Amino acid sequence: MKALVIHPPHDLRVEEVETGSVGPAQLRVRVGAGGICGSDLHYYHHGGFGTVRLKEPMILGHEIAGTVTEVGGAVSGIAPGRRIAVSPSRPCGHCRYCLEGLPNHCLAMRFYGSAMPTPHIDGAFRQEIVIDAAQAHPVEDGISDGEAAMAEPLSVALHAVRRAGPILGRRVLVTGCGPIGALIVMAARRAGAVEIVAVDISANALSAALAAGADRAINTAEDPAGLAAYGADKGSFDILFEASGSEKALRSALDALRPTGIVMQVGLGGDMTLPVNVITAKELELRGSFRFHAEFAHAVSFLNSRLIDVRPLITASFPFTRFSEAFALAGDRSQAMKVQLSFE
Amino acid sequence: MKALVIHPPHDLRVEEVETGSVGPAQLRVRVGAGGICGSDLHYYHHGGFGTVRLKEPMILGHEIAGTVTEVGGAVSGIAPGRRIAVSPSRPCGHCRYCLEGLPNHCLAMRFYGSAMPTPHIDGAFRQEIVIDAAQAHPVEDGISDGEAAMAEPLSVALHAVRRAGPILGRRVLVTGCGPIGALIVMAARRAGAVEIVAVDISANALSAALAAGADRAINTAEDPAGLAAYGADKGSFDILFEASGSEKALRSALDALRPTGIVMQVGLGGDMTLPVNVITAKELELRGSFRFHAEFAHAVSFLNSRLIDVRPLITASFPFTRFSEAFALAGDRSQAMKVQLSFE
Amino acid sequence: MKALVIHPPHDLRVEEVETGSVGPAQLRVRVGAGGICGSDLHYYHHGGFGTVRLKEPMILGHEIAGTVTEVGGAVSGIAPGRRIAVSPSRPCGHCRYCLEGLPNHCLAMRFYGSAMPTPHIDGAFRQEIVIDAAQAHPVEDGISDGEAAMAEPLSVALHAVRRAGPILGRRVLVTGCGPIGALIVMAARRAGAVEIVAVDISANALSAALAAGADRAINTAEDPAGLAAYGADKGSFDILFEASGSEKALRSALDALRPTGIVMQVGLGGDMTLPVNVITAKELELRGSFRFHAEFAHAVSFLNSRLIDVRPLITASFPFTRFSEAFALAGDRSQAMKVQLSFE
Amino acid sequence: MKALVIHPPHDLRVEEVETGSVGPAQLRVRVGAGGICGSDLHYYHHGGFGTVRLKEPMILGHEIAGTVTEVGGAVSGIAPGRRIAVSPSRPCGHCRYCLEGLPNHCLAMRFYGSAMPTPHIDGAFRQEIVIDAAQAHPVEDGISDGEAAMAEPLSVALHAVRRAGPILGRRVLVTGCGPIGALIVMAARRAGAVEIVAVDISANALSAALAAGADRAINTAEDPAGLAAYGADKGSFDILFEASGSEKALRSALDALRPTGIVMQVGLGGDMTLPVNVITAKELELRGSFRFHAEFAHAVSFLNSRLIDVRPLITASFPFTRFSEAFALAGDRSQAMKVQLSFE
Repeated sequence: MKALVIHPPHDLRVEEVETGSVGPAQLRVRVGAGGICGSDLHYYHHGGFGTVRLKEPMILGHEIAGTVTEVGGAVSGIAPGRRIAVSPSRPCGHCRYCLEGLPNHCLAMRFYGSAMPTPHIDGAFRQEIVIDAAQAHPVEDGISDGEAAMAEPLSVALHAVRRAGPILGRRVLVTGCGPIGALIVMAARRAGAVEIVAVDISANALSAALAAGADRAINTAEDPAGLAAYGADKGSFDILFEASGSEKALRSALDALRPTGIVMQVGLGGDMTLPVNVITAKELELRGSFRFHAEFAHAVSFLNSRLIDVRPLITASFPFTRFSEAFALAGDRSQAMKVQLSFE
Repeated sequence: MKALVIHPPHDLRVEEVETGSVGPAQLRVRVGAGGICGSDLHYYHHGGFGTVRLKEPMILGHEIAGTVTEVGGAVSGIAPGRRIAVSPSRPCGHCRYCLEGLPNHCLAMRFYGSAMPTPHIDGAFRQEIVIDAAQAHPVEDGISDGEAAMAEPLSVALHAVRRAGPILGRRVLVTGCGPIGALIVMAARRAGAVEIVAVDISANALSAALAAGADRAINTAEDPAGLAAYGADKGSFDILFEASGSEKALRSALDALRPTGIVMQVGLGGDMTLPVNVITAKELELRGSFRFHAEFAHAVSFLNSRLIDVRPLITASFPFTRFSEAFALAGDRSQAMKVQLSFE
Repeated sequence: MKALVIHPPHDLRVEEVETGSVGPAQLRVRVGAGGICGSDLHYYHHGGFGTVRLKEPMILGHEIAGTVTEVGGAVSGIAPGRRIAVSPSRPCGHCRYCLEGLPNHCLAMRFYGSAMPTPHIDGAFRQEIVIDAAQAHPVEDGISDGEAAMAEPLSVALHAVRRAGPILGRRVLVTGCGPIGALIVMAARRAGAVEIVAVDISANALSAALAAGADRAINTAEDPAGLAAYGADKGSFDILFEASGSEKALRSALDALRPTGIVMQVGLGGDMTLPVNVITAKELELRGSFRFHAEFAHAVSFLNSRLIDVRPLITASFPFTRFSEAFALAGDRSQAMKVQLSFE
Repeated sequence: MKALVIHPPHDLRVEEVETGSVGPAQLRVRVGAGGICGSDLHYYHHGGFGTVRLKEPMILGHEIAGTVTEVGGAVSGIAPGRRIAVSPSRPCGHCRYCLEGLPNHCLAMRFYGSAMPTPHIDGAFRQEIVIDAAQAHPVEDGISDGEAAMAEPLSVALHAVRRAGPILGRRVLVTGCGPIGALIVMAARRAGAVEIVAVDISANALSAALAAGADRAINTAEDPAGLAAYGADKGSFDILFEASGSEKALRSALDALRPTGIVMQVGLGGDMTLPVNVITAKELELRGSFRFHAEFAHAVSFLNSRLIDVRPLITASFPFTRFSEAFALAGDRSQAMKVQLSFE
């Protein structure tokens, strides 16, 4: 069976890999669709991000869905032919953080397609994969593999929204409307935000944010003072979801946040110079959000019921052998939101 | 009656001022003691801090206690001769933040000795002052005016500790052990911290932190890697109180915080360059803490019962006419914690 | 102008009343629609509920919408002809609870149509009323007065959901599916519940719950053990909204709640015999929810955008002179959800 | 070695039992002191409580401390001769609640001396016991085995206080001042309560509450209206810790709680008839508190530092062979707080 293996930057190859055998609590899965994530793009273009660097070849990909083809002897409730979304989150279940209910901080996490630990953890851009039964989440008929593969980035968005606390009735600002920002718009709307304003510098991204349910879109490239009115009386928004990774976007948004407002920082970012005096005087809270765990089941539930409908965010799908076109489009913010690969 | 009025930096003068008449809901107070705060020092040395700048002469001071000498006609429950601590917090009681229970974010706050608004709000370094009855908090016999004047900085510390959420059983790190840092040690101990580690670069400050109840003091000037061991397994401390205003102190402490740990940023600070990727990956929370309101009553209660005993932190008291010596000592971290003035 | 005034139980009369003049911060409103609430029914049938008893005649009603006809001199941003929903919540703005952000616990609340204080506070079942401008919430074209009048009971539901904390991804049980229970289903769905199960003993109420968005309806009159499966492994639901006021309903639902689950008790109820050992051993939280305040603005916003669409819950509307038929239908759970009066 | 085995009620026997061998992650412990808990008294007098009933003989006891005599091969950091407090909490570490950080709700808990599951889980009133190393918490020199054995009931109190949320600056009422109530007074004081009022009908219990740090004690047998003044303006206390298990005590305390106040229900209790209308109208929160887990380490830390000093609460100690006298005294509220057994 074939897989997409990243070597040095820009050297992505289709290679033959062994799938391995199915253990008693495992499943064999024929992968249907896989979405290209920002981290895949970073490995592809730059060989990593921040302090995370590729030190050896690694299979990319962690946003996948497919069909079960073989079921381990100890697994009940799932049969061959079942279509599933696959969670890439594999915490150890034994460390102090796992036992505190914080599996996303597991000391021995084996998240798909990650070069944080060495040896790296292979990803799931492959035609066939063996998974733990606990990673499988059944998908309803009528929901495509492509939609199901959106469960992973939707989980990231749901986790960020959950960490922001109660949303019902809150006024929300989202800076950066790539796939994660647009999914945050959907998740915040689902969670009861009473007003959602989206900010970006790309018309394409802002169109997606409006399609995702934002009440208003502000293009700060064209209208640099677009947020100014929200700064009256010490600010308007209860919560800012910062998904741009841009220091400039974050700084300008702080003035639009009301006292005791929350900044959810999504995506890793790097060093940023922040006006700590503003954070102090307005008693803002800057909270990081990292990955997810329990939210994967919620994401699949919302996709199955279409209480969250992600179809407007899927730009295109390519056969995995045409990965070069797919990665090029995925990296073009002026045209693309989520680009997926087909492994059929 | 006399008051201490700041003109341009270093030009502090004893001047004659009118006290004014006592309204029906007011009290006349003979000021006993007044503590010199970091902001008083900033006005004195630099004419302000951050974007806050002196534009006109202003009476300094906001940490005072004294004795009631006249009582307005509509005030009950307090009589001349009553010794009180005076809260400098005077929110309007009508704006949206006051009605949300956030009076420290009042849109029309008249906090003593503040050049944030213009005209500036005069402070309380004066022999006599007329206050609103709501600012008065009775002090027990046996508690000196100097101790009572510590209610204000103690309120700052209590507010920061309250904003950190439940403390019982938590492990706490305090960086920066001036008067506010040392009072945070006391407040965190009072609130049930199970372990408190204090960090500073001054031996004098660290002695005060130990006297305040810290379990361990680390001098990072002498032992730059003193916190390293706390970084194992993604970190040890649940909460960091950052009271140094130093970017370097904050950055080095982040590694010692466990995932989902809280950073309480106390004191205004300015621009700081922060490793946002660490905040994100560990899901830290950086929260500002600004002034106080309800905590003033708690502070006086803890002082009255000596459940918090601030006496180890009062370095010296000077007659207000010797303000020059007092301000010099207050600014010398190698010798002083809290320096107070006497207005008798 | 005419109003509906309750005298002794069952003696409801159309009477002529004075509207009064419009103060500078007030509005005159021609009432369009008014919804009949459970408390109106209690006054009508029983002269009160619990310890609240009618001691004098009182105008009923607190769920109204209409059209502004006159605007006080100090009011800006609203003009005659504007259609509005009217909040019946009138806290004093000065007591300790108002200043803590808890106006629903105001010590001097003047909520429409309430016999809690004496003299009673008149309600709004009248052709014309003078209100404070702060009570007025503009309604979009295309939203009927009847829908707008649902803002009040929707606010009750939104307040209960807000007090339950974060809902996104939670599993929710609702016992009692009258108008408030059905609106809680809508509010919980809006707030991101991943599963909602509704319980009642009336087929009509359960139909409404499904129309409101519940995933499943259980008729415990027909299927007394319908919740049993949810009791496995110490329980399934994160949150129970108890809107039946029935001790039996509450007791049977406790077994279906997971450890640390939350019971939101909505509606006043009376004495109930509860298994405190179950609450203790499972560490459940039984929280009361009482009225609302800020949620009224959220309710109108959700109605205006139809992010919450209450139309399936409006059973019928009668001219106010036919109040007898209206109150009879409103009290018949087998046929009615919300019954409204028209005052045109 | 000898143990105290309960047969039918009042038939408690000293019996010879086997200690068993020490596994690689285990310790052999010579038990020093063991405290008699309310549940031990219930088994002794009534054969159980609520639905929990003795179905077979069981060793009693779960509040113990002693000295390590043998160390398993895989255990590091502890040596023979080490004095320890022993946590009786043994969750499975694998079930859904353990993985959510709620080990006290473990589906396969093996808590010492519990007849909840059958076969029952033997307790620790025995001369020698083999424990898991994770149950051992080292005790400082100068802290007696009797004090160390208080770590278990202190953990119950700390867990209840933690579940009440932030305590700093709060006003606290405690109803029922047996050992758990008195320890809650200590824990609430440690956690920063600004005022603590204790209520009981026993002069002995109220003396203990004052010794534990309460500001005021009210004997409602002598002064039935002693709490009335606290009911002004809808109530005074932020938090009620109900440790009496008395419906009458709980009901009368509700009026003294302020709106949005919290009732922590400690101890199992049974059916109680509660005024749900008061809970609703004041938006109170009735929360159960059940056992503990992480708090055991905090308890030992506070005992070691004497930041909580439990010595005033230890009434007497008897050799375990004189269990009859010990259980008689332990059950006499007019004379005893905590009664302990010595197993040396």
